Amino acid sequence: MFSLTPKEDKFFEFFVETANIAYKASNMLVEFLKDLDNSEENLKKLKEVEHEGDRKQHQILEQLNKTFITPFDREDIYIIAKDMDDIIDLIESAASRFVMLNVSKVTKEAIILGDMIAASCKEIITLMEELKNMKTSKYLNKKIIEINRIEEEGDRVSRRAIGDLFRSNIEVIEVIKWREIYQYLEDTLDACEDIANVIEGVVMKNA
Amino acid sequence: MFSLTPKEDKFFEFFVETANIAYKASNMLVEFLKDLDNSEENLKKLKEVEHEGDRKQHQILEQLNKTFITPFDREDIYIIAKDMDDIIDLIESAASRFVMLNVSKVTKEAIILGDMIAASCKEIITLMEELKNMKTSKYLNKKIIEINRIEEEGDRVSRRAIGDLFRSNIEVIEVIKWREIYQYLEDTLDACEDIANVIEGVVMKNA
Amino acid sequence: MFSLTPKEDKFFEFFVETANIAYKASNMLVEFLKDLDNSEENLKKLKEVEHEGDRKQHQILEQLNKTFITPFDREDIYIIAKDMDDIIDLIESAASRFVMLNVSKVTKEAIILGDMIAASCKEIITLMEELKNMKTSKYLNKKIIEINRIEEEGDRVSRRAIGDLFRSNIEVIEVIKWREIYQYLEDTLDACEDIANVIEGVVMKNA
Repeated sequence: MFSLTPKEDKFFEFFVETANIAYKASNMLVEFLKDLDNSEENLKKLKEVEHEGDRKQHQILEQLNKTFITPFDREDIYIIAKDMDDIIDLIESAASRFVMLNVSKVTKEAIILGDMIAASCKEIITLMEELKNMKTSKYLNKKIIEINRIEEEGDRVSRRAIGDLFRSNIEVIEVIKWREIYQYLEDTLDACEDIANVIEGVVMKNA
Repeated sequence: MFSLTPKEDKFFEFFVETANIAYKASNMLVEFLKDLDNSEENLKKLKEVEHEGDRKQHQILEQLNKTFITPFDREDIYIIAKDMDDIIDLIESAASRFVMLNVSKVTKEAIILGDMIAASCKEIITLMEELKNMKTSKYLNKKIIEINRIEEEGDRVSRRAIGDLFRSNIEVIEVIKWREIYQYLEDTLDACEDIANVIEGVVMKNA
Repeated sequence: MFSLTPKEDKFFEFFVETANIAYKASNMLVEFLKDLDNSEENLKKLKEVEHEGDRKQHQILEQLNKTFITPFDREDIYIIAKDMDDIIDLIESAASRFVMLNVSKVTKEAIILGDMIAASCKEIITLMEELKNMKTSKYLNKKIIEINRIEEEGDRVSRRAIGDLFRSNIEVIEVIKWREIYQYLEDTLDACEDIANVIEGVVMKNA
């Protein structure tokens, strides 16, 4: 039988909490993209969520350093905390490009990629909720496959969007701006996939 | 004396197999660059090899998770599998830029960098073949130095190519496209060097 | 009581030495930015310091592989050596952009970012000097916070600089060049923050 002490349980709780912060940030990104008229204000709110993520990461690392026996590899707990923080940072960075580069009109593909980031972050919540049942859960593997599928689909969307960008007749300076925005959106989906892959490794090791 | 059980031997076999997949991909890149008229079709074939690499990486990780005693640090086996996968992914990404950015003419420098990637991947095969003899092999160190040399030379080639690009009178949009292509080619050589450095560490630890 | 054998002490010495090399490189970058007329020659000198850093990293890894008991986690020693090397490499890469992209006039913001890199590298020296007293040092935490503060401030400076760049009327080709230079300067400050975060983890674990 597999049983957890309250202390070990703490990590699973923290991971669910971080996943919820990432999901909140991803929803704010979705809204951000639809409301570029208020991008500066909306970015400030997103920055607050980013700081919330920083504090949660710090909490996990502190817990890690005072816990002698961890529910799975220390190193993996450390990597999950770091990778979750990367997702949230990248969401903020993607949004900040619109302010920095003074982009006031969104594209269809950016909206699609934003929705995919939110979809991926939602799956990550379930991953984290199921993690404590990793020995028996039937959902984990499905969710991991789904996050990988979203990333591959996102790759296709952004490659097509970038291709269209270079084929279009818009000004070069706009091409550069959008090239950068798509890169950040794609990197965010990659970071979601990284989490899925780390969790896959943890599940395999503890099977 | 140093002796391996069949199970441990498996990892060395897998690494040689992944190195062969990377080398195959690098040769396809070399051909790809010489046949941009058929870039879409050629890219599809390269994507298949990328998936072959994915499956091999998965096989290594599964083997890792069911093997209790590994021939060297688990973490290093994990990193080698991941870094080999990165090389193959980057080769595909480099090729995909030509399709995505609608680039139909190659440059001399891209050809040179493609050849260097293939040369580096060839050295990696020998690295992997010699890895099981790491305590006695005289080749390993030479090969590691050679891969590092290729990366440094590649850095010079791509810096010069990018410099020429910005000094030329070609359209800005073309400068952007080629800046991106050179970056991917350079990143691929960096990924080859990463593998050489990880192997160097493994050899040092087990000397 | 906490006491170190001469061998263990060696790592702390090496880290101080690498930090001094990084600080030297950062000061050369500061000078480099003020003397772009001699950028090719100055870059050569910076490359020599980069090689000095490579040799020091190699020395640390060799020491690591012949030391059975390390003063703290082997993995962290490895990461610190690697991250310090990244800082020095990025400083050289940032400078090399000016030569590669044929940029002969500096901006106010590049100067500011250069100064911030030097300030951050100076703090890293103190971090490394205090590391051997990690159980009692009162400075470590302050220095870590300061390096994080510099990185956040640098992020604001570079985001503003890039924003201004895209809003200005300079030629697009110049926008591309400067976008790339600012990226390297920002990445260097990020690499300094990475070191601070790794040290923070080491201190927490050994508290």
